[in-house]
Amino acid sequence: MTRLLLASAPDFSTHYRALLQTRGEAVDGVEAVVSQIIQDVKARGFHALADLSARFDNFALTPETVRIGPAAVNAAMAACDRQVIAALELAAERILDYHLRARPEDARWQDGQGLSLGWRWTPVDAAGLYAPGGLAAYPSSVLMNALPAKAAGVQRLVMMTPPARLHENPAILAAAKIAGIDEIYGVGGAQAIAALAYGADPIAPVDVIAGPGNAWVSTAKKLVFGTVGIDSVAGPSEVFIIADGRNDPAIIAADLLAQAEHDAVAQSILFTDDAAFGQRVLEAVDLMIAQGGAGPEAAKSWPAYGAVIVVDQLVDAVALSDQGAPEHLQIATDDPDHLASLVRHAGAIFLGRHSPEALGDYLAGPNHVLPTGGRSRWASGLSTHMFMKRTTLMGTGLDGLAAIGPAGVALATAEGLPAHAASIALRLKAAGLDPA
Amino acid sequence: MTRLLLASAPDFSTHYRALLQTRGEAVDGVEAVVSQIIQDVKARGFHALADLSARFDNFALTPETVRIGPAAVNAAMAACDRQVIAALELAAERILDYHLRARPEDARWQDGQGLSLGWRWTPVDAAGLYAPGGLAAYPSSVLMNALPAKAAGVQRLVMMTPPARLHENPAILAAAKIAGIDEIYGVGGAQAIAALAYGADPIAPVDVIAGPGNAWVSTAKKLVFGTVGIDSVAGPSEVFIIADGRNDPAIIAADLLAQAEHDAVAQSILFTDDAAFGQRVLEAVDLMIAQGGAGPEAAKSWPAYGAVIVVDQLVDAVALSDQGAPEHLQIATDDPDHLASLVRHAGAIFLGRHSPEALGDYLAGPNHVLPTGGRSRWASGLSTHMFMKRTTLMGTGLDGLAAIGPAGVALATAEGLPAHAASIALRLKAAGLDPA
Repeated sequence: MTRLLLASAPDFSTHYRALLQTRGEAVDGVEAVVSQIIQDVKARGFHALADLSARFDNFALTPETVRIGPAAVNAAMAACDRQVIAALELAAERILDYHLRARPEDARWQDGQGLSLGWRWTPVDAAGLYAPGGLAAYPSSVLMNALPAKAAGVQRLVMMTPPARLHENPAILAAAKIAGIDEIYGVGGAQAIAALAYGADPIAPVDVIAGPGNAWVSTAKKLVFGTVGIDSVAGPSEVFIIADGRNDPAIIAADLLAQAEHDAVAQSILFTDDAAFGQRVLEAVDLMIAQGGAGPEAAKSWPAYGAVIVVDQLVDAVALSDQGAPEHLQIATDDPDHLASLVRHAGAIFLGRHSPEALGDYLAGPNHVLPTGGRSRWASGLSTHMFMKRTTLMGTGLDGLAAIGPAGVALATAEGLPAHAASIALRLKAAGLDPA
Repeated sequence: MTRLLLASAPDFSTHYRALLQTRGEAVDGVEAVVSQIIQDVKARGFHALADLSARFDNFALTPETVRIGPAAVNAAMAACDRQVIAALELAAERILDYHLRARPEDARWQDGQGLSLGWRWTPVDAAGLYAPGGLAAYPSSVLMNALPAKAAGVQRLVMMTPPARLHENPAILAAAKIAGIDEIYGVGGAQAIAALAYGADPIAPVDVIAGPGNAWVSTAKKLVFGTVGIDSVAGPSEVFIIADGRNDPAIIAADLLAQAEHDAVAQSILFTDDAAFGQRVLEAVDLMIAQGGAGPEAAKSWPAYGAVIVVDQLVDAVALSDQGAPEHLQIATDDPDHLASLVRHAGAIFLGRHSPEALGDYLAGPNHVLPTGGRSRWASGLSTHMFMKRTTLMGTGLDGLAAIGPAGVALATAEGLPAHAASIALRLKAAGLDPA
């Protein structure tokens, strides 16, 4: 099947809609099992954790051994390549700096009627971070999930990770140390999320849970939402690239495959105004896959969900991109800011020919946890806000009470809430003011 | 059963924990039915809406009559008390002003390594607002849910409300008009939420859904979360009041009952350092209930969940309040800012003797949609943010690429993602730079 679509073709909009909508997200049957796991951990605490870990992970947990202590963390640091440690440290510094700038600001003012108004942001007490094992065990994700919490000022950071193959990937614990996480437990799966939400002595509960995971972990996060905050409901991820014909086809092919190699339902779409260039990119993608230049998942996701779309003018690609509301949007042109200013929906925009998504995945500074599957229409990437909460502030003396109190009494009365009305009216009367 | 607890009593902490935890939230069996309703609307659109409205609301919906047009809205405006319209207009002006100030700001800067970084906020395209019928039909809620979306710059605001008894409460449509909502449909229940999330021609889908509702509506919002954004998962609400003995017991009693009259599981707790004052407040509450000075729900919720707690010093009340993480906290003392500065968790703080929650419920300016049931530990009230999303921005020239590219290549390689590494390394090589 050809992956080159012409936006001017009569059936294009039908094809394009199908391309955006065919990636499956739901996994049937997971929710019922995960719901049982959560109830079990809520009811039986650590006993349930131990039973579930034995059953699902074939791993014996005890309250004494569940915590991964400083000795194991230091050993992991020592086992890592020095260059990787240096790269993680540079990444951590840049990510922390970006997220410190993203701390929301407090405000306080007096209004014209004499009321003092405002708000203040404070960090949550404790944040939990899930770090998956296996395929998706990325030290960069540890940094991206932990450092916004650090920037927020969260005092207690807890990491949960499946213990079975942790020794194969020492960079996970190294990243945790570099990010300043000092409470790490070797627990994986939905039960780890349940323990974070409800506690499982010696594991104390947290307030917000972040971090990627498989369908079990994601479903558990969705189910505990409301008891705790969660970072997002994540689905298959995607990159859209808008590129003119003056790019190197091999470089744009690498960019498309960098997304495609994430997993079998990842989506990479190139929009270009140069059909010949698009054709060369397709060839470069095929060559790179054939030569093993991309991870094995790319050979599944690219043929299934990848495409090169030829538009008359690059500006036409903006509307098509907005229709998909991509997680990542690269704009590889000489004046990327112009096209970017027209974009309505994107989790992150990468501006210019030298700015691939991969830099953002690791160490540009912005977060790589971003709204997927069209959710950038309404959702934002993980940031410092997620680990803070806002308290609104309101205070008034008699002037403000006199100015707005009678209208408050009128509204309370109209809503049939007499104690609301009395709460304002009694204060007006005590001050010798007319409540009507 | 006495409602006066001494914080110094040996069994106090057990009693207090029970007081905070006994309010039920879950309604068994709702989720399965709501899930079916949502699937039905998703599959059959307006046909499902019509069938469900006939079955649950005994109301015949047609595509031609589902929309509540300008004539009905203007008739409702005319049917309202002039004083109520004026009060709604004052409230709308104040709420809009507060939420315009709360618009998050964009940022863009160059960092030391030559990267251009930043973010920008944009409004969602469309927001949906649910306005319940029956007991909870409050025009103030229409303002509080719609005006943050207006402040965000949302172009399309859609309101759904059960049509059956709308004519009894013209202030609902008046508030919608004052808030600038111009697309209103007479649909209630879980099916209204499903129509907002998935569309039901002629009702186009929205991006974010806000607004209060019963267990069916709340469950539907939770289930569509992820497809669209939702304002919050709300539970039973509460007020905590910290007051010294120099307040008028009748006024503090009215404040407690203003919360208690909301519903049968509302909670009102007074903390005071003056036991005699606490006793007088209890008597004033009983008298006010006996005289019909509070709505009928107060007679259920106050005996079940209300309390006066006597502390040695008012500062001790702050830690107890944080344990409950209340939705609303009133501080009725001469120096409320001092105690407020010590508070870690509260959705909204009302400062001073003249600042009852009721002013905030209607027209102080901050939102009255706030995190309930202890959720102020991690969640914030409804605000302008909820109707906007952030796009992160990153761009670099060759200097920035040279500065951070090699570390990116090292991390991609360590994570086993060759196309990620190639995406950076090919750019470095093309510029004559060393990717290692």
